[in-house]
Amino acid sequence: MHSITSPAGSLELYTDSSPNGFKATIALAELGLPYQLRHVRIEQGEHRLPAFLALNPHGRIPVLVDHDTGVTVFESAAILLYLAGKTGRLLPKAPAQRWAAITWLQFHAASMGPMLGQRVHFEIAEAGANAAATAHFRQLCGAALSSMDGRLANHAYLGGDAYSIADIASFGWLHIADLIGFKLDDWPHVGAWYARVAARPAVQLGITIPAPATGA
Amino acid sequence: MHSITSPAGSLELYTDSSPNGFKATIALAELGLPYQLRHVRIEQGEHRLPAFLALNPHGRIPVLVDHDTGVTVFESAAILLYLAGKTGRLLPKAPAQRWAAITWLQFHAASMGPMLGQRVHFEIAEAGANAAATAHFRQLCGAALSSMDGRLANHAYLGGDAYSIADIASFGWLHIADLIGFKLDDWPHVGAWYARVAARPAVQLGITIPAPATGA
Repeated sequence: MHSITSPAGSLELYTDSSPNGFKATIALAELGLPYQLRHVRIEQGEHRLPAFLALNPHGRIPVLVDHDTGVTVFESAAILLYLAGKTGRLLPKAPAQRWAAITWLQFHAASMGPMLGQRVHFEIAEAGANAAATAHFRQLCGAALSSMDGRLANHAYLGGDAYSIADIASFGWLHIADLIGFKLDDWPHVGAWYARVAARPAVQLGITIPAPATGA
Repeated sequence: MHSITSPAGSLELYTDSSPNGFKATIALAELGLPYQLRHVRIEQGEHRLPAFLALNPHGRIPVLVDHDTGVTVFESAAILLYLAGKTGRLLPKAPAQRWAAITWLQFHAASMGPMLGQRVHFEIAEAGANAAATAHFRQLCGAALSSMDGRLANHAYLGGDAYSIADIASFGWLHIADLIGFKLDDWPHVGAWYARVAARPAVQLGITIPAPATGA
């Protein structure tokens, strides 16, 4: 694991160029929080090193350490909730919109992200060799995108009127889906939302840290 | 959808007898909160009725409506966070333990629950006909159980010393895994934790609402 020079702060982010990693880098960019970037090179197996497993025994990035509070958080949705809690930003204050945003954050975390991940496994990593499993995960991803599309038909953002950590989580993954050719054409409201989120400078910055994804 | 008589309250829970539903019924039992139970019979397709899709466009249980606050929440992890927030219970107050509990809640929601769900699909619903996909999800479930086992080797509960919504979420699913014969023998700390959580009266009550799971 290698440190990249960045403005000093109490936060350390262990991450790699990946769908889940970009959720953390986008949020930190939106919040303007300084942090020490620790690049965990998954291709080189650095996520299996004992020093990293001591932070997250499941061996996955991202991991956030806050030296001000003594808190270590992994799982990207937990990191997003932590940063929103720390700053009081990126979640609406009004209860109905706040819990709508948290609901859609969890929808991404449990019902969309894992299905996209498994679609990548069967359709890309295994090149569709298992046709039945590939079709199964295409269907599940399509169903999740349809639910998201229905929500975005009547709301600018997943939580309602305000951009939130629900949008950041969803964008982090859909950016990769877009790069590797999972088309969004059948879900026009998702496509319009994608363009709206992609136009944000912090989003454009976040998806380049620690390096832009190649889709490989 | 049918109402079951229960003590009046501001809360309505739409649920069925299922891994994710039991997370909500256990938490409500732990908290002693009165609620109106709405039984959504998935076998009869009630989760696809327009009245239910208006609550959760993704058509999944559980859904919690709080008429006191005007909040509607779906996704079981969001419901658990909501109930912890509403009551100030089932999450530690100290930041390090609080965020450990939220981290492990998210670990269940994203890294374990969806993998157990897909293992059930390929190994049980499709009776292992797709051997490669069955093996793939057995491996992923095993990896998640190993990470959980490591955590529980040194902590009584997932968040640390205190029982929390992280344990409730994990138990809801592992109860079903146990019923359908996914053995926990290779993960002794998970097995000991399972027995500890199962001994709680609220847990025993929660897994019978709206009806005990049959494993079918």
